[in-house]
Amino acid sequence: MPRLSFLAALLLAAVPALAQKAKTTENLVQYAKPLVGTARMGHTYPGATVPFGMVQLSPDTDTLSYELNGKYNPRVYEYCAGYQYADKTIVGFSHTHFSGTGHSDLGDFLVMPTTGPLQLNPGTADQPERGFRSRFSHQNEVAEPAYYRVKLDDHNILAELTATNRVGMHQYTFPQSEQAHIILDLTAGIYNYPDKNVWTFVRVENDSLITGYRQTHGWARTRTQYFAMSFSKPFVSYGSRNLSQKQVYRGFWGRFDQTKNFPELAGEQLRLFFDFKTTAGEKVKVKMALSGVSTEGALRNMRAEVPGWDFEAVKRAGQALWQQELGKVVVESPKRADKENFYTAMYHAALSPTTYMDVDGQYRGLDQNIHKAEGFTNYTSFSLWDTYRALHPLYNLLQPRRNADMVQSMLAHFDQSTMHMLPIWSHYANENWCMIGYHSVPVIVDAVLKGVVPADQAQRALDACVTTAHQQRYDGISYYEQLGYVPEDKSGSSVSKTLEYAYDDWCIAQLARKLGKTDIEAEFSKRAQNWQNVYDQRINFMRPRLADGSFRPRFDVLSTHDQGFIEGNAWNYSLYVPQDPAALIAKMGGEKKFLPHLDSLFTMHLPDKFFAETEDITRDGIIGNYVHGNEPAHHVAYLYNWTSQPWKTQARVRMILPKMYRPTPDGLGGNDDCGQMSAWYIFSALGFYPVAPGSPEYALGSPAVHGATINLENGNTFRITVKNQSDKNVYVKEARLNGQKLTRPFLQYADVVKGGELVFTMAGKPY
Amino acid sequence: MPRLSFLAALLLAAVPALAQKAKTTENLVQYAKPLVGTARMGHTYPGATVPFGMVQLSPDTDTLSYELNGKYNPRVYEYCAGYQYADKTIVGFSHTHFSGTGHSDLGDFLVMPTTGPLQLNPGTADQPERGFRSRFSHQNEVAEPAYYRVKLDDHNILAELTATNRVGMHQYTFPQSEQAHIILDLTAGIYNYPDKNVWTFVRVENDSLITGYRQTHGWARTRTQYFAMSFSKPFVSYGSRNLSQKQVYRGFWGRFDQTKNFPELAGEQLRLFFDFKTTAGEKVKVKMALSGVSTEGALRNMRAEVPGWDFEAVKRAGQALWQQELGKVVVESPKRADKENFYTAMYHAALSPTTYMDVDGQYRGLDQNIHKAEGFTNYTSFSLWDTYRALHPLYNLLQPRRNADMVQSMLAHFDQSTMHMLPIWSHYANENWCMIGYHSVPVIVDAVLKGVVPADQAQRALDACVTTAHQQRYDGISYYEQLGYVPEDKSGSSVSKTLEYAYDDWCIAQLARKLGKTDIEAEFSKRAQNWQNVYDQRINFMRPRLADGSFRPRFDVLSTHDQGFIEGNAWNYSLYVPQDPAALIAKMGGEKKFLPHLDSLFTMHLPDKFFAETEDITRDGIIGNYVHGNEPAHHVAYLYNWTSQPWKTQARVRMILPKMYRPTPDGLGGNDDCGQMSAWYIFSALGFYPVAPGSPEYALGSPAVHGATINLENGNTFRITVKNQSDKNVYVKEARLNGQKLTRPFLQYADVVKGGELVFTMAGKPY
Repeated sequence: MPRLSFLAALLLAAVPALAQKAKTTENLVQYAKPLVGTARMGHTYPGATVPFGMVQLSPDTDTLSYELNGKYNPRVYEYCAGYQYADKTIVGFSHTHFSGTGHSDLGDFLVMPTTGPLQLNPGTADQPERGFRSRFSHQNEVAEPAYYRVKLDDHNILAELTATNRVGMHQYTFPQSEQAHIILDLTAGIYNYPDKNVWTFVRVENDSLITGYRQTHGWARTRTQYFAMSFSKPFVSYGSRNLSQKQVYRGFWGRFDQTKNFPELAGEQLRLFFDFKTTAGEKVKVKMALSGVSTEGALRNMRAEVPGWDFEAVKRAGQALWQQELGKVVVESPKRADKENFYTAMYHAALSPTTYMDVDGQYRGLDQNIHKAEGFTNYTSFSLWDTYRALHPLYNLLQPRRNADMVQSMLAHFDQSTMHMLPIWSHYANENWCMIGYHSVPVIVDAVLKGVVPADQAQRALDACVTTAHQQRYDGISYYEQLGYVPEDKSGSSVSKTLEYAYDDWCIAQLARKLGKTDIEAEFSKRAQNWQNVYDQRINFMRPRLADGSFRPRFDVLSTHDQGFIEGNAWNYSLYVPQDPAALIAKMGGEKKFLPHLDSLFTMHLPDKFFAETEDITRDGIIGNYVHGNEPAHHVAYLYNWTSQPWKTQARVRMILPKMYRPTPDGLGGNDDCGQMSAWYIFSALGFYPVAPGSPEYALGSPAVHGATINLENGNTFRITVKNQSDKNVYVKEARLNGQKLTRPFLQYADVVKGGELVFTMAGKPY
Repeated sequence: MPRLSFLAALLLAAVPALAQKAKTTENLVQYAKPLVGTARMGHTYPGATVPFGMVQLSPDTDTLSYELNGKYNPRVYEYCAGYQYADKTIVGFSHTHFSGTGHSDLGDFLVMPTTGPLQLNPGTADQPERGFRSRFSHQNEVAEPAYYRVKLDDHNILAELTATNRVGMHQYTFPQSEQAHIILDLTAGIYNYPDKNVWTFVRVENDSLITGYRQTHGWARTRTQYFAMSFSKPFVSYGSRNLSQKQVYRGFWGRFDQTKNFPELAGEQLRLFFDFKTTAGEKVKVKMALSGVSTEGALRNMRAEVPGWDFEAVKRAGQALWQQELGKVVVESPKRADKENFYTAMYHAALSPTTYMDVDGQYRGLDQNIHKAEGFTNYTSFSLWDTYRALHPLYNLLQPRRNADMVQSMLAHFDQSTMHMLPIWSHYANENWCMIGYHSVPVIVDAVLKGVVPADQAQRALDACVTTAHQQRYDGISYYEQLGYVPEDKSGSSVSKTLEYAYDDWCIAQLARKLGKTDIEAEFSKRAQNWQNVYDQRINFMRPRLADGSFRPRFDVLSTHDQGFIEGNAWNYSLYVPQDPAALIAKMGGEKKFLPHLDSLFTMHLPDKFFAETEDITRDGIIGNYVHGNEPAHHVAYLYNWTSQPWKTQARVRMILPKMYRPTPDGLGGNDDCGQMSAWYIFSALGFYPVAPGSPEYALGSPAVHGATINLENGNTFRITVKNQSDKNVYVKEARLNGQKLTRPFLQYADVVKGGELVFTMAGKPY
């Protein structure tokens, strides 16, 4: 044992006693760094939000169009969250952002304070002075949970942002100016297609309140976001510009000058401005309340959540919520960077799904009707292909109440779906059908089997899962049911689909067994075996198969392009049988053949040409041929637990953790994917991981923390004690649960939630 | 007295006793002819509707675009109600139509049954076989209140239509066909701009129910109409075509074939089809329920109003409602044509404003929020510049309950208006600002002063009227308040505006006096005199004045083009001081000068060139220079009552009635204007007219009926007995109210509503 680690272990020996008092007195908010992931491909946003909040009020450093000269603009991809750390200008502050997605939408209601002559175009990054955008410097920028501050150099304005669940609050400190303005740009948006705006509608209700909506046709095909915007100081005058040609019939409207002080505005492309005179250091505040229901709903949300104008109080309340969230796991580490990594991951893992319901329980459903959530909070933005893996399993530990509500939200979506399907990738009363599989199923099944969802919902949940899995119109399902696999000549990414359907089907079988539905259990247990149908025994790889039963001759095991996979190649996806790694190993010919495949995944050299086609991740997101920046291999490092060499899991995990997660703007190896990447970090840093949600157990890895206390919602505490921890002592010498030595490298969910202590003893060599 | 008239009088002597029994047993529905006004410029529709119904289910014979090659298409004007009698083809049956307007909108949800190979374009009038439209013949067409039937020759389908308030019902009798279709065209509409559709959204809920909405940007700038459409027989298959380019981001939607059997559709321009196999004579029925609130609301409306499939029962119920409405006035006449004229007018006068509220009281407000109408029915489509004159005054007699609700609807509009104005021309949760004045005021004041609106609403009503009249942003009001007139160089149609504001202001003064608000009374009594400020004493005409106080030199008293007037020339508008004809006469220099002006209006020769610029009417709509087809002169024939020659009123009215109203498709002299033209007929045929709504009295004219009984809602009956009636006996020898001879040619509203008898004795020469 190296001396340093020994000292560190000694140092930390005092901590547990303190941390075990469930809630810590330590300020954890300081460790969460919203700027992490804002450079390159993390696609996180640095702005202000509360846990699972409807409002994500954040600076946008550009608002590029999805198309440029009629073609896809590849740069738009960088702006999935609106902000790129390398940029030198800020266009404005908008109120809705995804965290870590690889496609995007949102960016609603861009607000920008300016001084000087009114400018109603955004200008360009190269020539910010030609528009309302402003230069800024990271020296003058602070990003904390629920708080963001930046100096807007071109306008000499200090901008501060905070938020409640449904209300974004701006505080702008102006210089003395006869020409102070606040711009509201309804044309701005993220992943803005040239005609993404379908309609916008604004009412100037009085000299300090406006209401309206923006209706878009983007990733969400039919989406309407309502707002109510209140100013702390009455504007002197106001006006608008309509950039759209869609003003065909003017009729008697022609008698009005709608560009100046006219209170009823509508059209496709509106930009508004509000004029003020300000004294030096004068603070003008703005409250922007959102609603998916109506402007009336937005006003109601505003009155309920931020009745007054105390910016500091709103910030304090927001940060108190974050302290509460982050305190669900209190970790110990001698290094500040480790805590920053951990709490930044905790922060990113509590951003979405987001609240999608007004304070009175009303929300817009998939059918575009207004529904009332009875007894649950409705959530939206389900990036399920990503988040079924670790994020929702994490919620079953840390957020069971919220996860139960998320399941209710998914079941409500099912009830409203004319396709009769659970969500695939849903956001804001829309299904965008992104990615593959039906991964609501593992989320729901895992939550039901773990008792997180009330038992009286279990049958309803099973029905929804089964109906979804039988939807013939969906993505090769009819072939899958006929042939036992999706044929590549009928439906692309066929191997990925087959493998993921099979896993989802296994989940359905687990729930059916629990409910004693033996027919369903049998049917889906059989389907769960379908992974075998795309396994080519001759080459020991999963491989695309054609409708005639043959494997497709053309095949490249390293490429992800048109090889039957999506966001992964055959090397990675051939390891995807999370429901039964043992069977996969057997199929591959036992450990003797399996281990070399697994080993070389991490060590092989991936030729350069394959990087270009690997989506959503930086080159840093790849280790050998192991692609951590995408999700299909997230469970792979844990597969050694099913072999005689679980110590390799421990080594791999401890290698991946520091390589893929650093507390810097460029610290994420790929899209955070709505928290999935962060959830991987949290589990792995704590020493275990849910390889197969739907199963009652976790695979043990190697904890990176020096100790941790999980404060469970049921009041119990689960303590993780790590003895002999160091950067080199990555191997688990032994693990004891409540004093009992674990003989298998697995941990039961049930053992965690009933509280107790897991003691890892670490070592510098494998055991 | 000619023999025929004498005989007729004898013949009718037996009728009163019977008719006085309030409700008649006579089938009055037979006399109402929905086809009247469908030729040329009547702009009525022949389809099925119930009184004030939300659904107007009617054939459209063309769906022209407002623009043709980028320019205004003048032919679109002919299709304000979707149907032109001269046309040979029907495109389909749509569910919303204005009656008699001179601009238009609506035409939602065009449904067309077809046989043979599927055609998804409408074809052209010249080549109907190239599309889904069909030839038809008036021989195979029947139009009755609440019922329409036509044979679609090209498809060999008998189409029948009926309606409840919120549900249109179709019954299609098909031939034997393997290829029977029902098309739902969401791109079709009336006054369809090339990009009027903002968005459409459709869900195929199951094999016989679809829901959705159409959102448009037309005369109503931001309008959304929701529907639920149910088929009596499950369709075998279905599909759609999206004609819009606005499908920029397809993403993972690309995996679906959305053109065939795909249940979730959205886009700008959708046409859908539903396929059936039919046996010979098989009836396939369709129920289309509307809502301004949501698809859920539409479904609720359907379930409440037409739970089953009994077409005949729905038709019977609809016609029973019409019998009840028409029976509010039971007239006697020996000529069927007279009864047809009268009951067709009664029919047209009970079409709009239309119900704009779901069965549960929810409706969409001007703020686009959903409101609940507490204690009233919400109405929309207020063509107030037209209808304040005679239609709403008629409602104060025949429909006080509905008129009270209409006033409530207007006050709700005011409450929702961010312009803080009562409706000008409002439809479907929109203000379209059409025409001039603020003529909600006379409607509201008249209803309040006549006790139709509860007294506890009077102050609220006054506040709304005063606030509206003070809206500086509106149409020259700021100048009007400063200068006492609207200057033509600042705001066009300035004389019409000044005159109409002055009348509206007089109404406000009347209400203020009633409520003892002396300040307001004084202010608006003064404003009511402003008509004098545009009277040019040197030429004895109303004349446009400039901001510098001078009358504009360029002036043509016959032209309506750019002369300071709208839909009327100086000859007609110079007679517009309905609040004080005596003062106008005095101003003009007494009877000696006034009578020649008035006489020559009816007798002068209007040079051809002025016809072209007279809007909205046929040449038949003009008598001399008296333009009956437009509204500004509607009171003019009654002005003789303020002179020593009231017999000229009697003669003019009896001349106008048969000339302007005939029970034939081309029988209307101009746009029916939402019933205003018909209301003029009803009043005038009964022998009196409301020259100045807001005043307690009617001017007597000359009855055209041979007797009438008005069955009042309060249970009273007002009997009009006409002695010695004939086409030649147009002069009133004497009029006795309850036996008392009237000494002035005026009748009090109060005397009518308390019940009683007015006996006219007619003569062939003036008395």
